Amino acid sequence: MIKNSQAEIQLEQWEELLAQRKEKELIALLEEAPTVEVAEFLAKQAPEVLVKLLSSSTKKESQGAIFADFNEELQAKLYHLISKETFAKIFSYMPSDRRADFYQKLSDKEQTKLLPYLTKKIKEDVITLSAYPPKTAGGIMSTDFATVMSDMVVKQAINKLREDSPSKKMIYYLYVVDANMQMVGFVTLKDLIMAKPEEKVASALHDNFVYADVYEDQESVAQKIEKYDLVAIPVLNEDKQLVGIVSHDDAMDVIRVEQTEDMEKFMGIVPAEEELDYLKTSSFQHFKKRVTWIVGLFVASFLSGLIIHKHKVLLEQLTVLALYVPMINDSGGNAGSQAATVVIRALSLEQITLRNWLRIILKEAKVAFLLALCLFFLAFLKVAILSSNTEIENHSLYTLAFTIALALSLQVIISTLIGSSLPLLIKCFKGDPAVAASPAITTIVDITGMLIYFTMAIVMLF
Amino acid sequence: MIKNSQAEIQLEQWEELLAQRKEKELIALLEEAPTVEVAEFLAKQAPEVLVKLLSSSTKKESQGAIFADFNEELQAKLYHLISKETFAKIFSYMPSDRRADFYQKLSDKEQTKLLPYLTKKIKEDVITLSAYPPKTAGGIMSTDFATVMSDMVVKQAINKLREDSPSKKMIYYLYVVDANMQMVGFVTLKDLIMAKPEEKVASALHDNFVYADVYEDQESVAQKIEKYDLVAIPVLNEDKQLVGIVSHDDAMDVIRVEQTEDMEKFMGIVPAEEELDYLKTSSFQHFKKRVTWIVGLFVASFLSGLIIHKHKVLLEQLTVLALYVPMINDSGGNAGSQAATVVIRALSLEQITLRNWLRIILKEAKVAFLLALCLFFLAFLKVAILSSNTEIENHSLYTLAFTIALALSLQVIISTLIGSSLPLLIKCFKGDPAVAASPAITTIVDITGMLIYFTMAIVMLF
Repeated sequence: MIKNSQAEIQLEQWEELLAQRKEKELIALLEEAPTVEVAEFLAKQAPEVLVKLLSSSTKKESQGAIFADFNEELQAKLYHLISKETFAKIFSYMPSDRRADFYQKLSDKEQTKLLPYLTKKIKEDVITLSAYPPKTAGGIMSTDFATVMSDMVVKQAINKLREDSPSKKMIYYLYVVDANMQMVGFVTLKDLIMAKPEEKVASALHDNFVYADVYEDQESVAQKIEKYDLVAIPVLNEDKQLVGIVSHDDAMDVIRVEQTEDMEKFMGIVPAEEELDYLKTSSFQHFKKRVTWIVGLFVASFLSGLIIHKHKVLLEQLTVLALYVPMINDSGGNAGSQAATVVIRALSLEQITLRNWLRIILKEAKVAFLLALCLFFLAFLKVAILSSNTEIENHSLYTLAFTIALALSLQVIISTLIGSSLPLLIKCFKGDPAVAASPAITTIVDITGMLIYFTMAIVMLF
Repeated sequence: MIKNSQAEIQLEQWEELLAQRKEKELIALLEEAPTVEVAEFLAKQAPEVLVKLLSSSTKKESQGAIFADFNEELQAKLYHLISKETFAKIFSYMPSDRRADFYQKLSDKEQTKLLPYLTKKIKEDVITLSAYPPKTAGGIMSTDFATVMSDMVVKQAINKLREDSPSKKMIYYLYVVDANMQMVGFVTLKDLIMAKPEEKVASALHDNFVYADVYEDQESVAQKIEKYDLVAIPVLNEDKQLVGIVSHDDAMDVIRVEQTEDMEKFMGIVPAEEELDYLKTSSFQHFKKRVTWIVGLFVASFLSGLIIHKHKVLLEQLTVLALYVPMINDSGGNAGSQAATVVIRALSLEQITLRNWLRIILKEAKVAFLLALCLFFLAFLKVAILSSNTEIENHSLYTLAFTIALALSLQVIISTLIGSSLPLLIKCFKGDPAVAASPAITTIVDITGMLIYFTMAIVMLF
């Protein structure tokens, strides 16, 4: 049995066997253990030991699966360490989607070197899969599935399944195709088990099925898998021929990537075309992803700068006003970003739609009012304490404190309303609500903040 | 075939049949279609029509699945519309995890009313499942799985499977238990298909398996499903008895919720104990989730306020300095938050670990330097343009512009370093890196910003 603590005991046992050079025993144990744990264990060993242990395994299929679980760096290192002939065998047994990913990352020269060692079937499979753009159904699909013909009887279908022997859980659906590989439906293994051996496959056929187009965006594919609760979704080309499947664990990966992109967008970071690893991305690439918004917002902040400059005379007369500008800006930015976060998440979890806009704005207005009320008292206190020795022409300290606190409250209410309505507006124009980025909201509400602040000061204090 | 556009054609066809009162034909079509589409179609109809269509279906199992797909509001409405006796039947065919969720939300009085209509088996199942805390394996698990004994032969196991007939994909694993319901391992349906009918189940047994504890946190359960690429994970109680399973689609839901919590934390919103729907959450609850940080940060900003106050005399002498305080604060906040976002995501995707801290900080320093270089020139220009008619005692406009631009560049570098190291530090002390919230970073870098700004001004201009 494996669990966190038990996994550690198992690991110690493996390390011990390795130290005692009891390799046969070790290999026997490794063959029984889950791929991911074996891969983790092997990755920690010296490359030479790793290669020896990996190639001694009698199960060719798990060699491929374990290799696929290594990170890119280790894969590249091993690729150069192992002879092309031995590597071709491991390569052939890799899951087809990971295999194509690996192949795509090889240089043209290395690709040409490897190809002669592959069987015709594997060669074709790799080249076909590598041709689809990443981030599409074709780019993430696998070719590891079982097909049957609708005129077969159940017994024949089970025999065909034994032959195709798709790995692991890809066995759950059997795709029913015609002579032209066009998909006509599917049967589940459960259907076959429940049916009589001499019954026709056609009698259990589900011809009302969900599929993905080969060029469909990976996000949309993941959403279909989630919506229809599928273990895997068939992928069809323009001629409705079955060319691959995308499984639920690929969908989970897509959801994780999407999550990162959403958060990046929201923080004003431009997501890269391809998924990038933090450490492997060069500093310059990191810089490029971040500079657009940092500079863009800096330029946009000329506007709030202009407003402050317009009131320079006012500030010279009453320097104390300048001291509270950051407070107004920060609180507005925080309140606006929070409201945007809440609305963006509720949209992406489909808890709200555009039709609810009035209810959302009303609810946010109430929340904003409560926040503004709290901050009013705090700001009044803050000004009264920090500026207690300040001389203010013609006005008492309390009038000043009241003016600033009122401006802050108004700013929090306006910012919350802007922060919550901006994602809705962007969605309304078919954009991605996550683009209503937190830094953008901060910059926008800086402008309203300065307008409110100086207007209030002029009205109340001059 | 169903796809977005085809789904719409299908919907029109259903609407038409309903309008023509061809209910028999409609029901026949609905019985063939995916549950989620039928649920969407029915939810749009008047409750009376809905109940009639739902209860006319001959497939009791899909009645339960469709009802489970309705939102809470509609479920509650229907519950009061349908007689307890009819409802008990639909209820019995709901997926066991959703059934327990529904039951938990009924009032004590309603629970007592419903119980007499349930069979002993369903009653026990519902009460047991409702007892586990939400957000644990027990709270999200289902009891819809198939068990076999290890001394059975393959043929017997397949017959047992036909009897248990677990719904849909729960059929993929067959859990092997002893007479005491303690789990000894599992076999897959593929194993049974590949084996000979008279072979012992024990000969195909996988006894090295991954499981979840019934009180284990749902996040940890989802991670196991993801790590080991499982369709479902068995859930064991303290006595190692098999009490339920959590399937991969539950894991996807958990990942989505987790994602929302991360983003909320990062924006300074305190996640609620239970998952809340945006519209159903009262404004006061929304307020409570947000007020802690808004007020906390406001109080923390007393510090940067104090620094500005300390230099009041300086500001009075050179008011122009006050005009650029917001620019320093905003750029620092943006750069710091971006760096934190990038590091938090890389940590959560396991692209980096604490051991990489030096590489991370060096990389961030390089990125920061590039950003600072860009902003230096822009800030110099900005000051030179906006303040071109300002008189500065003893100094040229360009000295002023240079000073402010240099302070800004330094602030961007320091902010990026703070933003990237804070999540690492929190992680180092076993905290959740996402707590290094964007508003908190903004407030912290405001302090460094003001220190840098005024120190530079004193050194260079006075």
